[in-house]
Amino acid sequence: MLVVMHHDASEREIEAVCQAIRDMGFQPVPMPGEQRTAVGLIGNDGPVDDSTVIGLPGVAQVLHVSKPYKQVSREWKAATTLVPLGRGVAVGGRDVVVIAGPCSVESEEQIVAAARAVRAAGATALRGGAFKPRSSPYSFQGLGKRGLELLALARQETGLPIVTEAMDEGGAELVAEYADCIQLGARNMQNYSLLRAVGRLRRPVLLKRGLAATITDLLLSAEYILAEGNPHVILCERGVRTFDSAARNMFDLNAIPIVQRLSHLPIIADPSHGTGLRDKVIPMGRAAVAAGADGIIVEVHPNPDRALSDGAQSLFPEQFAHLMEALHLIAGAIDRRLAPSPARVELAVG
Amino acid sequence: MLVVMHHDASEREIEAVCQAIRDMGFQPVPMPGEQRTAVGLIGNDGPVDDSTVIGLPGVAQVLHVSKPYKQVSREWKAATTLVPLGRGVAVGGRDVVVIAGPCSVESEEQIVAAARAVRAAGATALRGGAFKPRSSPYSFQGLGKRGLELLALARQETGLPIVTEAMDEGGAELVAEYADCIQLGARNMQNYSLLRAVGRLRRPVLLKRGLAATITDLLLSAEYILAEGNPHVILCERGVRTFDSAARNMFDLNAIPIVQRLSHLPIIADPSHGTGLRDKVIPMGRAAVAAGADGIIVEVHPNPDRALSDGAQSLFPEQFAHLMEALHLIAGAIDRRLAPSPARVELAVG
Amino acid sequence: MLVVMHHDASEREIEAVCQAIRDMGFQPVPMPGEQRTAVGLIGNDGPVDDSTVIGLPGVAQVLHVSKPYKQVSREWKAATTLVPLGRGVAVGGRDVVVIAGPCSVESEEQIVAAARAVRAAGATALRGGAFKPRSSPYSFQGLGKRGLELLALARQETGLPIVTEAMDEGGAELVAEYADCIQLGARNMQNYSLLRAVGRLRRPVLLKRGLAATITDLLLSAEYILAEGNPHVILCERGVRTFDSAARNMFDLNAIPIVQRLSHLPIIADPSHGTGLRDKVIPMGRAAVAAGADGIIVEVHPNPDRALSDGAQSLFPEQFAHLMEALHLIAGAIDRRLAPSPARVELAVG
Amino acid sequence: MLVVMHHDASEREIEAVCQAIRDMGFQPVPMPGEQRTAVGLIGNDGPVDDSTVIGLPGVAQVLHVSKPYKQVSREWKAATTLVPLGRGVAVGGRDVVVIAGPCSVESEEQIVAAARAVRAAGATALRGGAFKPRSSPYSFQGLGKRGLELLALARQETGLPIVTEAMDEGGAELVAEYADCIQLGARNMQNYSLLRAVGRLRRPVLLKRGLAATITDLLLSAEYILAEGNPHVILCERGVRTFDSAARNMFDLNAIPIVQRLSHLPIIADPSHGTGLRDKVIPMGRAAVAAGADGIIVEVHPNPDRALSDGAQSLFPEQFAHLMEALHLIAGAIDRRLAPSPARVELAVG
Repeated sequence: MLVVMHHDASEREIEAVCQAIRDMGFQPVPMPGEQRTAVGLIGNDGPVDDSTVIGLPGVAQVLHVSKPYKQVSREWKAATTLVPLGRGVAVGGRDVVVIAGPCSVESEEQIVAAARAVRAAGATALRGGAFKPRSSPYSFQGLGKRGLELLALARQETGLPIVTEAMDEGGAELVAEYADCIQLGARNMQNYSLLRAVGRLRRPVLLKRGLAATITDLLLSAEYILAEGNPHVILCERGVRTFDSAARNMFDLNAIPIVQRLSHLPIIADPSHGTGLRDKVIPMGRAAVAAGADGIIVEVHPNPDRALSDGAQSLFPEQFAHLMEALHLIAGAIDRRLAPSPARVELAVG
Repeated sequence: MLVVMHHDASEREIEAVCQAIRDMGFQPVPMPGEQRTAVGLIGNDGPVDDSTVIGLPGVAQVLHVSKPYKQVSREWKAATTLVPLGRGVAVGGRDVVVIAGPCSVESEEQIVAAARAVRAAGATALRGGAFKPRSSPYSFQGLGKRGLELLALARQETGLPIVTEAMDEGGAELVAEYADCIQLGARNMQNYSLLRAVGRLRRPVLLKRGLAATITDLLLSAEYILAEGNPHVILCERGVRTFDSAARNMFDLNAIPIVQRLSHLPIIADPSHGTGLRDKVIPMGRAAVAAGADGIIVEVHPNPDRALSDGAQSLFPEQFAHLMEALHLIAGAIDRRLAPSPARVELAVG
Repeated sequence: MLVVMHHDASEREIEAVCQAIRDMGFQPVPMPGEQRTAVGLIGNDGPVDDSTVIGLPGVAQVLHVSKPYKQVSREWKAATTLVPLGRGVAVGGRDVVVIAGPCSVESEEQIVAAARAVRAAGATALRGGAFKPRSSPYSFQGLGKRGLELLALARQETGLPIVTEAMDEGGAELVAEYADCIQLGARNMQNYSLLRAVGRLRRPVLLKRGLAATITDLLLSAEYILAEGNPHVILCERGVRTFDSAARNMFDLNAIPIVQRLSHLPIIADPSHGTGLRDKVIPMGRAAVAAGADGIIVEVHPNPDRALSDGAQSLFPEQFAHLMEALHLIAGAIDRRLAPSPARVELAVG
Repeated sequence: MLVVMHHDASEREIEAVCQAIRDMGFQPVPMPGEQRTAVGLIGNDGPVDDSTVIGLPGVAQVLHVSKPYKQVSREWKAATTLVPLGRGVAVGGRDVVVIAGPCSVESEEQIVAAARAVRAAGATALRGGAFKPRSSPYSFQGLGKRGLELLALARQETGLPIVTEAMDEGGAELVAEYADCIQLGARNMQNYSLLRAVGRLRRPVLLKRGLAATITDLLLSAEYILAEGNPHVILCERGVRTFDSAARNMFDLNAIPIVQRLSHLPIIADPSHGTGLRDKVIPMGRAAVAAGADGIIVEVHPNPDRALSDGAQSLFPEQFAHLMEALHLIAGAIDRRLAPSPARVELAVG
């Protein structure tokens, strides 16, 4: 922590800052400059709460040197975490995973058709929403528990592990019973009660970046989950909100190499929400893998024009197959490979 | 709804859009232009779901004419809603309310001192957090239920109704038992499960705008509460996140006249979070009232330098008293007045 | 300057940073912490160029303590600069100035009618564009030199000093011949050739904040003008671009108290561009004055519905008169007053 | 254009809007809805100026169907424009170009070493600034005309065409004498006088997107150049400014497929400014090509630690060579190829 004083701060004000730092149990290091004095702090083991210092007379600004998160950082753990999704699929290694499926689970026919189509093209896991956070209370809100049952059925049919969203504590427990990975959506990224709840469950969590969340915010939210004892968090860049409405969101692929430097958690990208426009999903899915993402999550619908939600950004199955071909080559270009499809456990049983 | 076709859309594609509109039960109105054709839709009573149309071949864009919200709009109800906080205090009328108090409830001594100080200066209600959403899991998280008890005590001492935050469904029920108004914070503005929960409670709700929420988003979140049967929602502008870090947030006072045109719900402003800097709270509190806000909510601490949270943006009691004097004059300049302090019910009883 | 090292930086990397600081002529102060080491720098008189340090191995981040600007800062000059507009009008003192008039000069009849109307309501200066920067090359671009002549005529008729925009070096010289103050628009805030050019002219400059300019950027652009020898710069907040399109821009009134703390230059606000919507101009003009602005600049048109540009945000003369009444009271509430109208020099001469 | 009326607009107000549309020479199409009436407009050949309509009583909003630009659109010209840089290099075809070199020209030794290094790795053109727009007036501003002479020398040595920035009209003429392509920087994207000036020159223009420019703004600025008669514009995404400061800018790769749908002009990307961090340039350069960019422009310095500007984001020559290898594979994955190096004309002469 570095406390920057106003240029006209008095000796007495500087000393008061030094005393406050001593009161916190640390050692102050005053650094007088021509323009202004700054006071450094040494002896801390992690971030220091600045709230008692920042309001002192003569203080202009407090700069932090230590990061505010801990267990999610590369300093804490150097090797990238490998998050197992079940059925032999894991996120964070050399293999690039592809999680695909419809925005919402709509019917048995729809979800099974979608699961078969994405598996045929080489997907590693199945996505599909049973609980849907919608801006409007009058929009389709998902099939709820019935949707989870249909996802489990699609998993049985195809062997693909399933990823689906939970919106509250009760829902998270239910999702944990059925799904292989609990997704937390962008709007709930700072729902701390929910973060704590999934931190206590024994399921991997896919945590999506909030619409205006900095990368520090994203990592702090992941920290909530790890702090409760759940080490299996996959981060997900899905576009943020900015001044340009040409696309639904601005897809911040810079987040991928930045997170990979700061944290050991794997990070994937969602080109469907990141663009919101079907014909942009393919180039941006390619870009995400080229940027080094550990995977992508992408919306594919057997019949997008009839989708109950997000139809305009869902790929047709044949577009998805085409995307997979390009991803195969791009992964190879950066010395990675697409993850192989999971074993069909039910066939092995049969 | 207006469906804008690509300039090279075929007759057949245009007809398919018209048919899709007919299938939805509405009437299409094709409007050929030199550059491109657009297809209007008539016969709808409210917003139309565009998801089946937006993905059709040849469609460039879908523009919405109807607003996506309903019960919160001025069209639905012309007169501004008056939200009663208890003890004779109401938000949304000619009186400008001032809700003041510390960021967090820290101790009996602190909250009672704060309540007395803000009442002495003319505040209408008391704020103070018992459940604190914090970016870091390692920051002070509030006193919880004990904090609610202390708030109730401070109300008893001063007669001020209390406003305090809830972070989840369980917490909301508890807050409703103790407080006069349930606050939902910026990070939970799109926590739809929580919005629904407070919509079922019989307490006024203070709904803060999210960090990247458009005004439409804010109104849609309020719609969730009204849709569950709770008409008493106060909106609150508290600053949004932008590219400039000179202040903690960018305080969007434009939101006040904009909301007042679109919605019948009252709107107040929070200059403490809107600026994050103590010496900016006073000018921006004045600006909020001059812009026509129905009230302000402001952090005041008996000893800000010792505050456990948000010390740097809390006013000293004497600064708050000074602010109140200016607000009194400014309210008068726009033909309003500061709300009188609530009656001290307990004295009447005694 | 504080150089923050990566947590795993070697002793050798830290020493290389210290040596680089010594090579620049300053003294390094290493501050070892549990999590990472930081290296402070002392002995500098102003900001230090970080480009040779930031790329060294082991460096995570460079934090700056000194501000990057100099002559515009309160450290350089404590008293607020008083910028004279001529005819006894000055910006930056206790008096709050009101600069009003149409977006563009359209005709003699229009500009003279506008000038008379705004003077009658108490304006202190006349605005009106002769050179108009427009997003589209096909929009009305202003009357050019003829517009300047008409402005001079309107000044002669009313005694109001005139403020008008220049878009390039040639234009700036021409504007300086006719106008009392040269306006630089938001889009040209970082047109450094133009900043230097007006820095060499002997006319006050009204510098508008760019659409995505931080306050630091704004002050640096003003520094360009002062560095060329022109001390008379008025800053202007006019709204920035963000994620919400409910208004044309987001009007950042926080900028007013922030600039007033950092710089001695006066700052005014433009509620017309800050909102882009006529019925929002009045409340936000009031808010700007309540926030402590040294003045406002506002669009008023004798017949807004026929305006060639910005009609939708121009006030009707009677709305402007109404606004002036409220400003009069609000200025009084914060111990300031509206600037009196300038003397009519030409009448005095006659 | 679609004029959306307030829900309580009177018949008379609706008729006034229809009349205003007729006065403009078009035909109004009223579309009554349950919630509100909208009035469409037919008969226009291109965008319509909304300024006289938007301020009429009862008007809530005006939506535009036609795009505000014309000659830059795919509607105007379906085939992608091929912009020749000289020496056989062209941007906009199947070949992906790589423009590389230092931020600033610093000395003969430096620019020639840089040119040789980037050519050896396969670059197609040389970049390097002679006129540098800097936020601070006290930063290094470039070598000016001497820098242009050194660039010409480096071209002679290597055969690489040169791309360099101009900051004003006088500079643009000078740059046009020496360089193969005139770059306009982000800060000057809406410097309309400069856009017009380069529109009158006979040199290709590389137009960088402004820090807060929407894609529509970018295309409108290009329209200024085409409107003056210069068809050879290359657009460039270089990162925009948002709420997150984890990277210098947010690199908006969505812009690439979006622009390619809307416009026939080629678009390249600048991962150096798009990230501002050396170790992020490589993954994001790969991502840009995977997203379909027609090329990249990237900073490479023979000795980045000694660079006078932007050292922290310049690649070492060996990093650049490594990036080129990956780009070669990725271009192949999407059925494109890296442009071959230009012929060494001077050898042919020898």
